[in-house]
Amino acid sequence: MNFVIIGGDAAGMSAASRAKRTMADLNVVVLEKTEDVSYSACGMPYNIADADRKIEDLVVRKAQVFRDKQGIDLLTGHIVEVIDRKNRTVSGTIQYSGKSFRYAFDHLLIATGGRPKIPALPGFELPGVLALKSLDDGRKIKDYIREHCVQKVVIIGMGYIGLEMAEALRERGIKVEMAKPGPDLLPWMPRDLAQAVEQELAANAVPLHLGCEITGIEETDGQLQVVCKDRMLKANLVLVAVGIQPNSEIAVDAGIETGIGNAIAVNRNMQTSDPAVYAAGDCADAFHVVTGEKTWIPLALRANRAGWAVADNVCGKPTELDGIAGTAVFKVFDLQVARTGLCVEESRSYGFEAVEVVIKSSSRAHNHPGATPILVHLVGEKKTGRLLGAQMVGHESAAHRINAAVVALHNKMTVADFVQTDLAYAPPFGPVWDPLLTAANQLLKRL
Amino acid sequence: MNFVIIGGDAAGMSAASRAKRTMADLNVVVLEKTEDVSYSACGMPYNIADADRKIEDLVVRKAQVFRDKQGIDLLTGHIVEVIDRKNRTVSGTIQYSGKSFRYAFDHLLIATGGRPKIPALPGFELPGVLALKSLDDGRKIKDYIREHCVQKVVIIGMGYIGLEMAEALRERGIKVEMAKPGPDLLPWMPRDLAQAVEQELAANAVPLHLGCEITGIEETDGQLQVVCKDRMLKANLVLVAVGIQPNSEIAVDAGIETGIGNAIAVNRNMQTSDPAVYAAGDCADAFHVVTGEKTWIPLALRANRAGWAVADNVCGKPTELDGIAGTAVFKVFDLQVARTGLCVEESRSYGFEAVEVVIKSSSRAHNHPGATPILVHLVGEKKTGRLLGAQMVGHESAAHRINAAVVALHNKMTVADFVQTDLAYAPPFGPVWDPLLTAANQLLKRL
Repeated sequence: MNFVIIGGDAAGMSAASRAKRTMADLNVVVLEKTEDVSYSACGMPYNIADADRKIEDLVVRKAQVFRDKQGIDLLTGHIVEVIDRKNRTVSGTIQYSGKSFRYAFDHLLIATGGRPKIPALPGFELPGVLALKSLDDGRKIKDYIREHCVQKVVIIGMGYIGLEMAEALRERGIKVEMAKPGPDLLPWMPRDLAQAVEQELAANAVPLHLGCEITGIEETDGQLQVVCKDRMLKANLVLVAVGIQPNSEIAVDAGIETGIGNAIAVNRNMQTSDPAVYAAGDCADAFHVVTGEKTWIPLALRANRAGWAVADNVCGKPTELDGIAGTAVFKVFDLQVARTGLCVEESRSYGFEAVEVVIKSSSRAHNHPGATPILVHLVGEKKTGRLLGAQMVGHESAAHRINAAVVALHNKMTVADFVQTDLAYAPPFGPVWDPLLTAANQLLKRL
Repeated sequence: MNFVIIGGDAAGMSAASRAKRTMADLNVVVLEKTEDVSYSACGMPYNIADADRKIEDLVVRKAQVFRDKQGIDLLTGHIVEVIDRKNRTVSGTIQYSGKSFRYAFDHLLIATGGRPKIPALPGFELPGVLALKSLDDGRKIKDYIREHCVQKVVIIGMGYIGLEMAEALRERGIKVEMAKPGPDLLPWMPRDLAQAVEQELAANAVPLHLGCEITGIEETDGQLQVVCKDRMLKANLVLVAVGIQPNSEIAVDAGIETGIGNAIAVNRNMQTSDPAVYAAGDCADAFHVVTGEKTWIPLALRANRAGWAVADNVCGKPTELDGIAGTAVFKVFDLQVARTGLCVEESRSYGFEAVEVVIKSSSRAHNHPGATPILVHLVGEKKTGRLLGAQMVGHESAAHRINAAVVALHNKMTVADFVQTDLAYAPPFGPVWDPLLTAANQLLKRL
């Protein structure tokens, strides 16, 4: 039996490894267009922060290991161009030789990932205007910084990749400015929390240009300029970090259905509209455990988990995934930012009557040395009393604390039940009433 | 209406404050035998660690504030001796004047807390043999260290108070040895996890005398000696930390039922066998959310929460508490130790067919700077696949990570459902598969 996988990163290699481990006689073919497989894409900003580290440090398992130790037919530089569903084949071109290839499949996994969105504006194709998604993107950024002695970067976009890169570049002593057209930093956050992030950026000398309508990028005398309606931002390198889009065109061309955000639509078994064709990772959508509706939040854990689920289904062990809670955490210099579930606006757009609260608590007990403020935002549903979402910002423990709320969302807990949970307490680790419980106690009064 | 409360710490003052806030015309009387109310008992080791800090820093709210600002009739130095259930009064003696008092109640709360267990062996009454539970105990230890220039302490017992005090005393440059009769440090832990704690103690120069049968304490030439069957341990101060017992005698004398560990038995409303008499805090028992049975695990969050529940019930807002998950976290020097739910032996004693796993993971992502090992132990039930308990040990994040398991226990989640949770991931905060998920994935294979 032939199991063919298009794409050799998180979802693809997770599926390949698990399928081969489960069924030794399964013929597993992975077709990866680049030369890089199985790397920690999320680790790139932290690698870029250190000039002395090789980008290849991020490779979790080398191609050779998959081939020699695991018996996976891993083919890099293989660009798949056509999925022929009728004849159950995929075909394409080998990058360097230009030769064509064709593979027959019984089961196919599309794990083509995503790619950065690039605004259709003049100058975004200039050298030195770069984006970060693949390992090769990371390599290019690192090489460009070194080769051009980059001293100043403008980051377009203020999402988590932009923010992580701001920290990485400042770490290397590079000046950073950030710009976006929208008026708010992290618009899904209540202003109190977003202000804490703004303060952290200001404390690390990262000016924010909000509401900055960008019309293009120009090059003058070897220097780049981001051209906005009311200002010009000079830079040696411009990083475009305005979000990603799914690599779903190959599926669309094959008549496979896509849905939210143009991601490939999958059921709980990770099957596309063609049951022999699976999709997983950043190119595929997911159910949201709070809304029960489809969502597209491309993140690493889901990619790995979905890859495993595909492998289990291919190997005859039917596996369904509940879905995602929309959990995301990131670090902005020394600040931890965490979220799960729905923000207020999302809640309302899904028809929930949302009630919210923001509280300020402490990362350690009353009078305990080293305590720092921690801000918690919770959203609940008026009618059912259900917890819908949580956000936290703080210099300590916010990233790990969010997980209690994540598990609550998976269980569709009410706020009244959540306040009864026996969360951990000891003075070095928090107040008696965990910040999440304090917030839940306050929210309960408003429900 | 008269609401009388015996005991003015966590449970008692939480109940008093909340009741008075809810019903301004309620007559709230608190009878506290010491002069200290509303302090962070759990913070004492960290206060003792710092010679320059006053023990009174641990007071969360002063008696004066309760009296003047909150209108609570807070009476310190009032020792309650008799609860007369028939006539609905409590009576006793005022500490310093020797005068007697009597108060009528409509609702009574017994929040008398606990006291350290002291072995019935010779020499445990000697000066310099001290225990730690009340603020006055903390004051005495601090004073004794200063007045006697204590350079060496033997701690009898290796529970969390003993371990926290070992750290506190080493912080002050005091030599510490620990002794206990049992053969194992933290016997409820798998050996891999307990060994990590042992290594941390060894790295901080704290010798452990395990299996050390203690026959008494002697004083010679102003120095104390802990006498064991096979050795003598010299010290300037001996700290007895072999556990606590509930102050339930006054309830027993009044014919109120006690149960597990001699704690006062309460229902989910915190009512004792006499519905007009409530009990909360370290003197009262609780339901365990995993077993559904009664348990006695005296900890601060439960005391606060139970105090609130009593207040709500007294004020006519019927409130039930689900119970506790047995969550406990503590710090041993730079190591974090966390547990929730049942250990393997407890699981078996409750009739669960327990299956367990121990895994080693990392506090941060693959190759991320600063990553430290984290050990996770999970227990599941063979028949139902349910998660029964979790333990973690690590230098980073173990204390906060445990809360995801806590919420899972409250929801009676299966391990199969738990592995699907969308726990947070970013490289500075953990691997893609959170250590809890890695452990759950392994446990799932064994179920």
